[in-house]
Amino acid sequence: MKGRATWDVRATNFAKKTFNPIRDIVENMNITPHPDKPMIALSIGDPTVFGNLRPAESVVDAVVDSVRSGKNNGYVPATGTLQARQAIAEYMTCPGAPVEAKDVIICSGCSCSLDLCVSVLCSPGSSILVPRPGFPLYTTLAEGFGCTSKYYNLLPEKNWQVDLVHLESLVDDTTVAIVINNPSNPCGSVFPKSHLRAIADIAVKYKIPIIADEIYDNFVFEGEEYHPIASVHPELPVLACGGLTKRFLVPGWRMGWIAVHDRNGAMQEVLGCLRTLSQRIIGSNTIVQGALPDILSKTPQSFFDDTLKQIQVNARYCYESVQKMPGLTPILPQGAMYMMVRINMDEFPEFATDLEFVEAMVAEESVFCLPGKCFNIKNFFRIVLTVPEETMKVACQRMTSFCIAHHTGQKQTKIHEDSISNSIQTEEPTINEIDESPKTNGNSANGYHINGKTNGMHEPTHRRINELDVEPSVKNPTGMNEKLRSCEDANVDDLVDDMECD
Amino acid sequence: MKGRATWDVRATNFAKKTFNPIRDIVENMNITPHPDKPMIALSIGDPTVFGNLRPAESVVDAVVDSVRSGKNNGYVPATGTLQARQAIAEYMTCPGAPVEAKDVIICSGCSCSLDLCVSVLCSPGSSILVPRPGFPLYTTLAEGFGCTSKYYNLLPEKNWQVDLVHLESLVDDTTVAIVINNPSNPCGSVFPKSHLRAIADIAVKYKIPIIADEIYDNFVFEGEEYHPIASVHPELPVLACGGLTKRFLVPGWRMGWIAVHDRNGAMQEVLGCLRTLSQRIIGSNTIVQGALPDILSKTPQSFFDDTLKQIQVNARYCYESVQKMPGLTPILPQGAMYMMVRINMDEFPEFATDLEFVEAMVAEESVFCLPGKCFNIKNFFRIVLTVPEETMKVACQRMTSFCIAHHTGQKQTKIHEDSISNSIQTEEPTINEIDESPKTNGNSANGYHINGKTNGMHEPTHRRINELDVEPSVKNPTGMNEKLRSCEDANVDDLVDDMECD
Repeated sequence: MKGRATWDVRATNFAKKTFNPIRDIVENMNITPHPDKPMIALSIGDPTVFGNLRPAESVVDAVVDSVRSGKNNGYVPATGTLQARQAIAEYMTCPGAPVEAKDVIICSGCSCSLDLCVSVLCSPGSSILVPRPGFPLYTTLAEGFGCTSKYYNLLPEKNWQVDLVHLESLVDDTTVAIVINNPSNPCGSVFPKSHLRAIADIAVKYKIPIIADEIYDNFVFEGEEYHPIASVHPELPVLACGGLTKRFLVPGWRMGWIAVHDRNGAMQEVLGCLRTLSQRIIGSNTIVQGALPDILSKTPQSFFDDTLKQIQVNARYCYESVQKMPGLTPILPQGAMYMMVRINMDEFPEFATDLEFVEAMVAEESVFCLPGKCFNIKNFFRIVLTVPEETMKVACQRMTSFCIAHHTGQKQTKIHEDSISNSIQTEEPTINEIDESPKTNGNSANGYHINGKTNGMHEPTHRRINELDVEPSVKNPTGMNEKLRSCEDANVDDLVDDMECD
Repeated sequence: MKGRATWDVRATNFAKKTFNPIRDIVENMNITPHPDKPMIALSIGDPTVFGNLRPAESVVDAVVDSVRSGKNNGYVPATGTLQARQAIAEYMTCPGAPVEAKDVIICSGCSCSLDLCVSVLCSPGSSILVPRPGFPLYTTLAEGFGCTSKYYNLLPEKNWQVDLVHLESLVDDTTVAIVINNPSNPCGSVFPKSHLRAIADIAVKYKIPIIADEIYDNFVFEGEEYHPIASVHPELPVLACGGLTKRFLVPGWRMGWIAVHDRNGAMQEVLGCLRTLSQRIIGSNTIVQGALPDILSKTPQSFFDDTLKQIQVNARYCYESVQKMPGLTPILPQGAMYMMVRINMDEFPEFATDLEFVEAMVAEESVFCLPGKCFNIKNFFRIVLTVPEETMKVACQRMTSFCIAHHTGQKQTKIHEDSISNSIQTEEPTINEIDESPKTNGNSANGYHINGKTNGMHEPTHRRINELDVEPSVKNPTGMNEKLRSCEDANVDDLVDDMECD
C-alpha cells in the first residue's frame, strides 16, 4: 500500500522509550499544599532559582565581551572552537589525567554530553550499569537505544559509596559502560580516591569503559577532596562529562563537554564517532564558547568558596535539624547540593510508602521534597540545599512539626541494621554519617537574598498536580523566574526540574 | 563471559551510520590551490565568515541585556520558555498557518530541530523522501535510525521545482515523511505557492507528514515571495523547522525551533514525543531565549533588506558572469545564498567528473566550490553568494579564465535537452533560468568590507587536503575567524561547513 489510509502518524519507539520517570511520578502524586502556608519546594535542582546564588560578575562580563566582539557569531567546528577546547583541556587536566584539546567534544550542556556518550556506546541488547539511588537521566537516554540499565547499589551506611560486590556481580557480556556520578545527585556524596580506585579496578578487570557524570566537579564542601575518576587509574578509559552548569551557576547556558581519556588506544573508534555524532546538532552556543577561556581561567576562587559556603551552611543546619526529627535519618552530604533523608517507615505506620509521606508533608506543611522513588530507592526523600537560609529554617521547623505529629515509637539515631545489605569490606573506613559533620562552620549571615517570592516559597494552591496540563502552561508576564511564580499557575515544572542532572 | 578479554571498545551502529558525505568527499579530493593566487573558498555556507554580513546592532543589544539581567541563567522548560515560544509563535504565524506557543519546541539550532523530527518519525525499515540535489544532513540524521533516504528529483530546467511524478512514485508503505527544503540549499530556489500546494496535495493524498526545513524562511530576493508550506493546505500536518541562523546571521548561536502544525489531531502523539525528546538535551541557550522576543519583533526591516541586497547583487553579478563562461550554465537563484552551476561536461573532455573539474579549478585558479557530488547530483557545482562583492568579481574572472583554457566546442546557453528527464507538466509556467533575472538591481557599492584576510581569500597551500588531520587542527592565536586563517593551517574545516543546513 502507498502511504496511509488514515492520518495515523506514529512516533518511533526511540521517542516513546525516552521516558522521564520523575515527571511521571510527580504528575501522579497528590501535591496539594496547605492553604495557609506558602509552598516551599525543596525539590528543584536549579541553584539559580531562589535568587541567592548568582554567577560571578566576571563571567557575565566575559559573555558580554564575547557577543560585543562580533567574532563569535559564525559556525565553528561541531566539536567546538580550538580556543574553547584548549581552555577545557587546561581546566580538566590534573595529575594522572592530562587532557588535550583534540580529546574534548563541546556539547549543548552536560545532558547532551551524556546523550552522546550513550549514543556512541549503547546499542540494542547492551546494558549499562547505573547507580541506585541515581538520577534517572542515564536510563532515560539509554532506553531509546534498546540498552538496559542495571542498577548497582550505593550504600547509605557508607556515605553512599558503591557496593562493589554488587557492581561486579552485574557485569556480563552485554555491559558496555559503567556510569559513575561523583559528586552525586541525589546523594551529595563525594567518593574518596581509594574508593574511585576500587571502582576503576573492576572496570579495568572486565575492560569496561566508564561514563563519568562529573557535572558537580570540584563542588565539594570544605575538608573534602574531589578526584576525577580518570586520575586514579592509568589504564582506565573514561568519557568524562562536565560543564559550567553547577559550579558556575549557569544551567541554562547549556555549556557541557566530554573529555575522552583514551588509554592504550581503546577509545579511538569511540572518539572518532563522538566527533561525528557532534555534527548532528553542532555543539554549543558560540557566544559562551568565545567567553569560555576567560570563564574557566578568571573566575575568582572566592566565588566558588562563597557558593559552597552557603550550601554547606544549609547542609549542616538541615542535617542537624533532621537528626532531631523523630523517625528520620539524614545522610550527611560531602558536596553537590543535595541531602538524602531516610524515612524509618515503621515509625510512621500511617504511610505505606515514601510517596505517601511526601504527599502528606505537602498537604499539612507545604514542604515538598522529591520522594526516593524518583531515584529508584524506597523510603527516602531528597532535600535540595540551595534555598536561602531562612527558607531552610522554616522548612525544617515545618518538617519537625510534621514528624512529631505522625511519629510513633522511638527516634532511631542509626540507620536500620536491615538496610545494611550487600555491604562489603573495603580499605575505606566506614564513615558514620551521624558523627561525621562538616569540618567548618561557615558564617551564613551574609550573601543571602530573601525578598518576597525569591525566598523559594510559593503561594498555596488547592489544585491537584495531576489535574494540570503537562505542557508548561507558564503565565509569567513579569519576567520573574518562572519557577517562582504564584502557585495559581503551579504545575510539575514548578516543583521538579527534569534537567537537574545538567 | 563477563566483560571483555581485550580493550576493544566499539562504537554503536547508530554512531557509525551518522556519516557526513561532504566531509568524506572533500577529504578525498586533491585541493591544492595555485601557489601564486590566494584561495577563494566559494564553498563555505556560513554568511558570517567573510565579515561583510553582521547581525543587527539591536540583536546584539538584546543579548547583552539578557545576560546582564541575571534572569536567564537557570533551567527553563526543555521546550523553551513561554515568552520565547510565544515570540516564535507570533513570528511564524501567517494566514492559513497559525502557531501557538504550545506547539513550539525550541532546539539547539535548526540541525537539532531536524534531528528531533527524524528521531520522532524515522524508525528502522522506514523511509523518508528527500530532495536531490539536497543538503545531505537529512540522510546523515536518518541513517543512524535505520531509515532509508529516497531521493526525489528537483528539476533545474524548472528552477529546481520538485519532479512531482517522481516524488509520488517514491511513496510506499514505508514512507514516514517528505522533507521539503524551501528556500533551498544548494539550489537557491524558492517555490511558488502553487507548487507548494501541489507538493502538499501529494502528501495529503497519501497522508504523509511534511518535515519542512525552512531555515531560509523569508530569505528571498526582491520580487520573490516566501510561503511556509504549512500555509498552503489546511489538512497538511507539518513539522516546520526554523531558527535565527541565516536570516539573523548568527549560525553559532544555536537557536532553532520546530513549530508543529497539527491538523485534525494527526500529530498529537508526535508532538508529545517531541516534547519528551527535547528533555534529552534540554533545549537551547537561555541567554538567547531571553533575548528572543526582542530579536524577533524589533530587528529593523532595513537589516533584512540590506543583507538580501548584498547577496542579490552577488547573485546577479555571478549569474551574468557564469552565463558568459563557455561550458557552464548557471541556474538563477531566487533566494537563500547559493547558486548551482551546470558543467556541460562534453565541452570539457579533459574532465570525467565534476570533482575533477573542481579540483582543476582549484589547482589553476585557487577558486574552490563544492562539487555536485556533495549534494547527490552530477555535473554541477555550487557557488556561495555571501562573499564580498570584490571577492566575487575576482572569483568570476578566474573562473572565466579557467573555462576558456579548458573549453572545447560551442557555448550552450540552454540546459541540455537530455537533462530534462522525469520532467512533468504542472500548472506552473516553466521559468527559463536564462531569461529570468532578478527584478531589481541593488546598489552594491556600499556595505562591503574588504580588509586583508577578511575578503575570503586564503593564502595558497601545496598540501593535499587528504593529508591533513580530520580533527580541527586550528592554530589561530589572533582570534581571527578560524575559517579565514592562512592555508598553512588549512584543512577541511576551512573549505566546507558541515553545518550549513543550519
